[in-house]
Amino acid sequence: MKDTICALATPPGGAIAIVRLSGPNAVSITDSIFSKSIKDAEGFTLHFGQIMDMDGKELDEVLVSVFRAPHSYTGEDSTEISVHGSPYIVQNLIETLIWNGARQAEPGEYTMRAFMNGKLDLSQAEAVADLIASSTQATHQMAMSQMRGKFSQELAELQGELLHLTSLLELELDFNDQDVEFANRQRLAELMEKIELHISQLADSFQVGNSIKNGIPVAIIGAPNVGKSTLLNALVGEERAIVSNIQGTTRDLIEDTIQIGGITFRFIDTAGIRKTQNKLERMGIERSIQAAERAQIILLLTESNVPFPEIEFREDQTVLQVINKCDMSLPSSSYLYHRQPTGHLFHISAAKGDGIEVLRQALVREASMPVNLDEHHAVVTNVRHYNALNQALEALRRARQTFDGQMPTDLVAEDLRGCLHHLGEITGSEITSNDVLHNIFKSFCVGK
Amino acid sequence: MKDTICALATPPGGAIAIVRLSGPNAVSITDSIFSKSIKDAEGFTLHFGQIMDMDGKELDEVLVSVFRAPHSYTGEDSTEISVHGSPYIVQNLIETLIWNGARQAEPGEYTMRAFMNGKLDLSQAEAVADLIASSTQATHQMAMSQMRGKFSQELAELQGELLHLTSLLELELDFNDQDVEFANRQRLAELMEKIELHISQLADSFQVGNSIKNGIPVAIIGAPNVGKSTLLNALVGEERAIVSNIQGTTRDLIEDTIQIGGITFRFIDTAGIRKTQNKLERMGIERSIQAAERAQIILLLTESNVPFPEIEFREDQTVLQVINKCDMSLPSSSYLYHRQPTGHLFHISAAKGDGIEVLRQALVREASMPVNLDEHHAVVTNVRHYNALNQALEALRRARQTFDGQMPTDLVAEDLRGCLHHLGEITGSEITSNDVLHNIFKSFCVGK
Repeated sequence: MKDTICALATPPGGAIAIVRLSGPNAVSITDSIFSKSIKDAEGFTLHFGQIMDMDGKELDEVLVSVFRAPHSYTGEDSTEISVHGSPYIVQNLIETLIWNGARQAEPGEYTMRAFMNGKLDLSQAEAVADLIASSTQATHQMAMSQMRGKFSQELAELQGELLHLTSLLELELDFNDQDVEFANRQRLAELMEKIELHISQLADSFQVGNSIKNGIPVAIIGAPNVGKSTLLNALVGEERAIVSNIQGTTRDLIEDTIQIGGITFRFIDTAGIRKTQNKLERMGIERSIQAAERAQIILLLTESNVPFPEIEFREDQTVLQVINKCDMSLPSSSYLYHRQPTGHLFHISAAKGDGIEVLRQALVREASMPVNLDEHHAVVTNVRHYNALNQALEALRRARQTFDGQMPTDLVAEDLRGCLHHLGEITGSEITSNDVLHNIFKSFCVGK
Repeated sequence: MKDTICALATPPGGAIAIVRLSGPNAVSITDSIFSKSIKDAEGFTLHFGQIMDMDGKELDEVLVSVFRAPHSYTGEDSTEISVHGSPYIVQNLIETLIWNGARQAEPGEYTMRAFMNGKLDLSQAEAVADLIASSTQATHQMAMSQMRGKFSQELAELQGELLHLTSLLELELDFNDQDVEFANRQRLAELMEKIELHISQLADSFQVGNSIKNGIPVAIIGAPNVGKSTLLNALVGEERAIVSNIQGTTRDLIEDTIQIGGITFRFIDTAGIRKTQNKLERMGIERSIQAAERAQIILLLTESNVPFPEIEFREDQTVLQVINKCDMSLPSSSYLYHRQPTGHLFHISAAKGDGIEVLRQALVREASMPVNLDEHHAVVTNVRHYNALNQALEALRRARQTFDGQMPTDLVAEDLRGCLHHLGEITGSEITSNDVLHNIFKSFCVGK
């Protein structure tokens, strides 16, 4: 990693383009094509001048920013060249930089270098990509919090507690011919339980985090021909699903993602649920039921005096009963979903668009409730982190079983080390047994 | 123009986005949402910190560049905020800046302010847009030269000479009851002729400038069914024109612009030229002949043993004779265009692609010859400039006629002032009669 990389950091086609360099020769390569001497320029300085192409001809008037290691994004010497966004200038500049010894950067290589140089841990580095992709307040807030290290800090606390636990157990192993017990068994069991709760809370937050990142799943469920596809189209504001008055028009699950009030929803239109002999339709209905199971919010679509399918929803799902076709017949309350509080009943005409705005607002209200993006807890949004947390959880549960079963202490310690390893994978810190040993000597001084 | 403007200067969707502010409150508005105090920051300084949204919540980690009037692009106090390129961050930042008193900038408003503040003249300001759009070396070089003021300098010289001339004539007018003659008539006539030659050279350069900017016109001319459309498709590398073996398939002129070897060519496929009674076809043939007249390069397409249309080309047009279908019959040299030097005869098979690359290289060679973008003369690329030059030329010619016809001096001076006015339109400098007077007193001190 001794080479100097360069890349265009802005999309092509604007008034201004930024070309970045990072590495030991970033300043000298920039200097070699720049009209002013910046060889000895200090960090955080700005320089106006001309850059030259390979033939020494003036290519553009530019602004050059100089950053000095370690006070740069990558932690290396870096420059940023701000040029006019012409395709010719950008291409020629990059060719000239490469001709002068720079290398075209790989995707994400700047952030990788920032991680390698200890400017960010792995989960923070991953948050940079999420931050750049963020298009809503919620995704922005989650990425920002993760980039600022909130998640890393929670993991570091967990790792500290686990290290302490492992230290105590491994110290016992060292002295096990002397039958020493350094820690109260009851205290150790409580500590493990507390850590398990914390990790499982983090893992559980993934459902919320994933909903925010990829959209809250909302299933539209109902009997055939009550207007589910019409409602989907009304909600997303375009002709997404094919609508007809033939029962069973929708067979495949139709999904569409839209943003309402800064929240991303993933609407799923489903096949109408009824008893049928048609094999194809039965397959569609099965998928509807599965979609309903995965949804966080159910729009139970009914129409006046028509019974709705006998389907039970989970306690943690929000069910909004929506009575459609209110322009055609007076709404009757004869069929009401039993769990339905009054505020959760909506009267609409999907075809005419009546009541849709009220329903959208209700979705925003229901969606923001469980999210609860408070400042005190990290929310996991990354599948890699989620998997690592589950592996850590598994290892910790094995450790607890072994511990409760009065099995040998070294088996317990091994599982705890496994748990530490999986947590360490998230931030990229390497927790070796050396670390564990080091921690023993730090908290316990045997010589004393 | 006392307000502060802000705008995104990079296209949406990259790693980095640049938001610019310019105006009297650029620094204080940026300061009000920035974690560090930059109120008293000097120009050309860089600051790393956090920006806040309207609720005071952290929006992003950013780099802020500060520029102080008059040492900035616009000549006003300016800042550039470099943020992560997230749609949410960019939108929120711009809203926050507007909430704090900035105004969304109009297109081109930064450069307009640079012009109003005397940082650039009009033709230089226009070159900035050309520079950003430049995609070839030639368009880049022309825009660069114009932005650096080469054209403005030539105009300034011309204006100086014209002012001198007008001054002499107007001084005579002031003293005309005394029958004074300040300048040798012969000398004045020579001066006017010299200026006219210079202006007409500049106006003539527009043909070259326009060819470089919009593509060198290349007309494909030939008898029906020799494969003109097939050649167009082969040259541009896609199915651009409809091809059939029916004579007269192509009626409309089909144009396509492509870049070969850094030069933009505008290929024009034309109707085959022959004697015909078909009215529609005759109209197409007329357009072919017009296209041939406008072209800089003619690809005269023939096939072995088929005579080509009797059409004469101008001396300043390059004619490349291309013998097609060389895969089907041995080429015969029976019909050769009389002006054709040996090197200008090409054998191809447009359908199979044989010989196309050699032809492309020949086009590049022929195209770069007349261009002659030397460092010493400005090339006019802008229609507005071209029109202003022609109007200046017209006024100057009127002045010469009046002068040669021994007409009253004030009529000559009026036309010269008209010529100055039109040249002044190009750079946006205002040449009023006050300027003319001022120049009289500067070069002639009457009191002495």
